Amino acid sequence: MDLLIKDIDLIPVDGRDDVIESTNIYIEGDTIVHIGDLKKDIKVDKIIDGSNKVAMPGFINSHTHIGMSLLRNYADDLPLHDWLTKRIWPVEAKLRAEDVYWGSLLSMVEMIQSGTTSFCDMYFFMDEVGKGLENSGMRGVLTRGLIEDDDKDKKLMETRELYKRWNGRADGRIKVMVAPHAPYTCSPSYLEDIMELAEELDAGIHIHLSETKKEVEDSFKAYGKSPIEHVYDIGLFKRPTIAAHCVHVDDKDMEILKENGVSPVNNPGSNLKLASGFSPVDKMLKRGINVALGTDGPSSNNSLNMLREIYLAATVNKAVNLDAVSISAITAIKMATINGARALLWGEEIGSVEIGKKADIILIDMDKAHLYPRHNMVSAVAYSAQAPDVDTVIIDGNIVMEDREIKTLDVERIIFEGERVAKDLISR
Amino acid sequence: MDLLIKDIDLIPVDGRDDVIESTNIYIEGDTIVHIGDLKKDIKVDKIIDGSNKVAMPGFINSHTHIGMSLLRNYADDLPLHDWLTKRIWPVEAKLRAEDVYWGSLLSMVEMIQSGTTSFCDMYFFMDEVGKGLENSGMRGVLTRGLIEDDDKDKKLMETRELYKRWNGRADGRIKVMVAPHAPYTCSPSYLEDIMELAEELDAGIHIHLSETKKEVEDSFKAYGKSPIEHVYDIGLFKRPTIAAHCVHVDDKDMEILKENGVSPVNNPGSNLKLASGFSPVDKMLKRGINVALGTDGPSSNNSLNMLREIYLAATVNKAVNLDAVSISAITAIKMATINGARALLWGEEIGSVEIGKKADIILIDMDKAHLYPRHNMVSAVAYSAQAPDVDTVIIDGNIVMEDREIKTLDVERIIFEGERVAKDLISR
Repeated sequence: MDLLIKDIDLIPVDGRDDVIESTNIYIEGDTIVHIGDLKKDIKVDKIIDGSNKVAMPGFINSHTHIGMSLLRNYADDLPLHDWLTKRIWPVEAKLRAEDVYWGSLLSMVEMIQSGTTSFCDMYFFMDEVGKGLENSGMRGVLTRGLIEDDDKDKKLMETRELYKRWNGRADGRIKVMVAPHAPYTCSPSYLEDIMELAEELDAGIHIHLSETKKEVEDSFKAYGKSPIEHVYDIGLFKRPTIAAHCVHVDDKDMEILKENGVSPVNNPGSNLKLASGFSPVDKMLKRGINVALGTDGPSSNNSLNMLREIYLAATVNKAVNLDAVSISAITAIKMATINGARALLWGEEIGSVEIGKKADIILIDMDKAHLYPRHNMVSAVAYSAQAPDVDTVIIDGNIVMEDREIKTLDVERIIFEGERVAKDLISR
Repeated sequence: MDLLIKDIDLIPVDGRDDVIESTNIYIEGDTIVHIGDLKKDIKVDKIIDGSNKVAMPGFINSHTHIGMSLLRNYADDLPLHDWLTKRIWPVEAKLRAEDVYWGSLLSMVEMIQSGTTSFCDMYFFMDEVGKGLENSGMRGVLTRGLIEDDDKDKKLMETRELYKRWNGRADGRIKVMVAPHAPYTCSPSYLEDIMELAEELDAGIHIHLSETKKEVEDSFKAYGKSPIEHVYDIGLFKRPTIAAHCVHVDDKDMEILKENGVSPVNNPGSNLKLASGFSPVDKMLKRGINVALGTDGPSSNNSLNMLREIYLAATVNKAVNLDAVSISAITAIKMATINGARALLWGEEIGSVEIGKKADIILIDMDKAHLYPRHNMVSAVAYSAQAPDVDTVIIDGNIVMEDREIKTLDVERIIFEGERVAKDLISR
């Protein structure tokens, strides 16, 4: 279907930091073909009225575990170790494919409703997430989390099969990467096996790095170096790498990240709630490191709301650095869009609203009391907008949500089944 | 009108930290008369179906400057000093009564839509806020900010007149307090005059204290003591005091706050965005200090969304203290409800849903993808709920919003006039 979004204010995230007022966006199939004046020679099937709305690239959630929505608000306000060992892991051990299917779809509903068009997921039963991606119309990176245990070779095999089954599927909306969980759950030799697989598949890497102070201290005890230096020495960064968290990083770590083009993913909501600390986002960005943004899993966040993460990135860093200029509104928006696209190795395809790029576009309804007066649309998005202000979501040229109604999924059934399997899971 | 809210889950904030499931709340006139089983002998005019909803006390925004909504998203990502001196103060100098009227109503719309039922406002042209309170049905404390200048005595007179005109008005929904802006804008002798007025009126005090590091350093230079010790020595805390911010406070300050029953108001959103720093909320609460919660003005926040402040209080403190147990979900909710009521000297009337209290109750619609599964309603409110999930707002027994529709105000006109006067103001 060919689309025209007419008379709309646009935050393009194309290098300019300001808003293009009252413009028109033409989409042919999956591609943005014209931005600017009305074109009589371009025929369209549908016109969307953009008045009172702002268009911008869809949000890219660069690190999450979407199946964990089943454990949202299940175990909060607990010490991290108790949370993981007493509450989360015992329940996760009982997870079945069906649970992950419904949990992932519940998360996709929430993501679409809050303007996220792409995500990078690390979990297991990843075929279920693939099925959800096919049906929901979303764009996503599937990664099967690899934790070393007796099944470690089987898990590598699963990743290879996942890649063969899903990489490039759904008109290219699905990508598969290789995901060593973390250097503290994978030995150096297992990391080498994983690297070998990533090279064989020509795939990117998705890993947790330097999330907690304890993790970094333990790494120094075990290897005499930080987690980042440790995996770098093993050669992990020869592959393009998405490094979730990077909270406790020093200058040497940042140098390694920069030199190797690693994309850290800042997860401010999760880092706050799990008491992990504050990532030096401003410092990393100033060094030219491509810092993306993510929610982490919905059981530690407890949402998948990228508008909240944008808000947190643009405010928490100011207080941490005692600098009201640290991480501006547009910088936080870039983290959630173009930087995420680059992290997911989709920088040429998505992350901005530009001619030639895929049409992953969201429209935010600005006609709300909390978004008036209209002094600055970029500030309004970062500091005042709320998830339900997202009105319309277009992914790969398809209207996935219009006037808050999701077109691709049976929301009522997904909520019902999500609740059912979640209650069944914790009573098993 | 007598009301029954039927079959509802209730977070009462009455000392219990958990949820009362499937209960019934009876309201006669402005008062809650029964919570529990259905009563055939109580006749009601209207029944609200509470299924799929959570009831809780309305939020109390204990420190704000609501007229400043006109400057929302007007000047962000600037150093604090430039923000104030180059952008905010020059525009504020041109403010007229009509501007504050529409700006305040715009803020009341936003507050009602996000579940706030009471607020404590410090600004000028406070008669306009009083008119808004009368019409909107909200409950509020009016305080005319007192900054020492050539009009200092006239401003005291205005406060006296404000008190006479508005204190106790609108069935007691309106209260007036006395508001020295801060110890750095009021000399000791002016503070003494202000104290005298507060004693004459038997009114509480509303003041900014220890917001920034520089303010505290300057106070030590000028008086050899902290702002809190300085105003304590002047005798300010003989009156019940609402102390906005208290970010940079030491043990001695906390001892003074505790001994004098001062209520600090934590404004996490504003403290983050203006790079003021992190208030030791957990420490203060553990000492038994009544810490309330506020948004500060909508030009520094840039919202009046108490759900966001609850979320920030419950997460930011965890990371600051590197302690995932710091400020639990229910603790943050208490700050936004019962602690706020106590700060505003309305602790016996509002702040919890209990028999005999005024019916200031909000209903949150839990039938949203981002609020499933239903493991813990208290966590869901603090960590996952969004302002537009607030469905119904009851203040003083009156239904002010139902199914998201505000009954007391002409929202469309207020948005129109708010936009008009804001644009006019900055072009003056």
